[in-house]
Amino acid sequence: MKKGPINILLTNDDGIYAEGIYVLYEALKKVGNVTVVAPATEQSAVGHAITMSDPLRVKEARRRRQRFGYAVSGTPADCVKIAIRSLLRKKPDLVVSGINLGPNTGFSVLYSGTVSGATEGAILGIPSIAVSLGTFVDPDYRNAANFAAKLARLVHKNGLPKGTFLNLNVPALPASKIKGVRITTQGKTPIIERFDKRVDPRKRTYYWLTGEVMNLRGGIESDIVALKNGYISITPVQYDLTDHSFIDTLKGWRLR
Amino acid sequence: MKKGPINILLTNDDGIYAEGIYVLYEALKKVGNVTVVAPATEQSAVGHAITMSDPLRVKEARRRRQRFGYAVSGTPADCVKIAIRSLLRKKPDLVVSGINLGPNTGFSVLYSGTVSGATEGAILGIPSIAVSLGTFVDPDYRNAANFAAKLARLVHKNGLPKGTFLNLNVPALPASKIKGVRITTQGKTPIIERFDKRVDPRKRTYYWLTGEVMNLRGGIESDIVALKNGYISITPVQYDLTDHSFIDTLKGWRLR
Repeated sequence: MKKGPINILLTNDDGIYAEGIYVLYEALKKVGNVTVVAPATEQSAVGHAITMSDPLRVKEARRRRQRFGYAVSGTPADCVKIAIRSLLRKKPDLVVSGINLGPNTGFSVLYSGTVSGATEGAILGIPSIAVSLGTFVDPDYRNAANFAAKLARLVHKNGLPKGTFLNLNVPALPASKIKGVRITTQGKTPIIERFDKRVDPRKRTYYWLTGEVMNLRGGIESDIVALKNGYISITPVQYDLTDHSFIDTLKGWRLR
Repeated sequence: MKKGPINILLTNDDGIYAEGIYVLYEALKKVGNVTVVAPATEQSAVGHAITMSDPLRVKEARRRRQRFGYAVSGTPADCVKIAIRSLLRKKPDLVVSGINLGPNTGFSVLYSGTVSGATEGAILGIPSIAVSLGTFVDPDYRNAANFAAKLARLVHKNGLPKGTFLNLNVPALPASKIKGVRITTQGKTPIIERFDKRVDPRKRTYYWLTGEVMNLRGGIESDIVALKNGYISITPVQYDLTDHSFIDTLKGWRLR
């Protein structure tokens, strides 16, 4: 743990003018110096995209008549990359991404722009946290922001293994209704999804992804189940996707 | 292993009119029935994106005066989802994604649309393979296509663990120069990247991601190193990102 103020890089995927990032910014200011570098527009479900075939633009963003941060014409991963490689004078001590409107649990972790901001932080060697709120409507971000600030302090104090970051999901409940904190794993609950087939005014067919009803299975150790049951969920995440357990079997295949 | 012809769903992220998917289609036709469902346009570095806020359009695509497949206004993950949920009469036996122009090794696995096509297949419970060629220029896809067809047969015969798929990278070399096949892990070689800061004709600043020079480290068990040394690389990949090794430590933190 280094001395002096904690330098925090804050990003998100709902865009720099979203409510979630503002509430988190206010909470993190009590923990350290916060620099905001976030997408100029909403980037939901961009996954871990990076922008390679287009240039990135960076503009100053103002909120409540004050300089708030840098708005980038890219994804959360782009924001973290350009912040660390070009915009910031020195590496931040911590990358925080959020607060996302909607949970990022189970398979959503793979799709999530919010999570990808933290993944990029971890790739670049910085302890990182992704923060999401378990609702899509009428969000009250204050609990999530306060808990994220607490977790930021703990991460700075205790450190994280190289390449590991934390995926935090907070239920959309009043503080008194939150049952506690669970250390969880990425849930494997299947997503019941389907495509609505519709016809547009010009008689052409189009499809819209719908459903996503969760068929809850598994115990409280799953991020999905913990969140649905009123617990704050923290999953340690890493980005080595290798299935090490299958290497030896695969070596036995007749590949030559 | 089931009897009868193998039904293969083929997608990619360079788009349905790319050369790589056509050469792979020709090779896979010798293995089974191939249905092509691929992005209408190039989708490079989309990561595991899914399209939720826009409708998807599906059109018939023709190549060489024949019906070739379905062109979808979305990402590789969208293509696999809509194929399995709406377009195909029954679940395919195998999902193949590629051939990508350019390798997908190391951290690129996280960014790769090609890999995300196979991830989506695995999530939906289907044995899947992502196929990439180790060059960005003057591609000759024939070796990669032939080896992918061989691997498709082996995957169908041997099966894969639930939730695991194979990430295949083939060097851009004549068959006689390929040194062999290696079962590998996702490489951890750091990417030396930076942003070019430029000024546009209207005197505004913009940034362009560049570099990506690999500083080769680690042994031949890394996908990056194996490919650079002339080996075909096969990495078994899974999508549980939980860092299980850190759960117990995290439970010891003062989180309440």
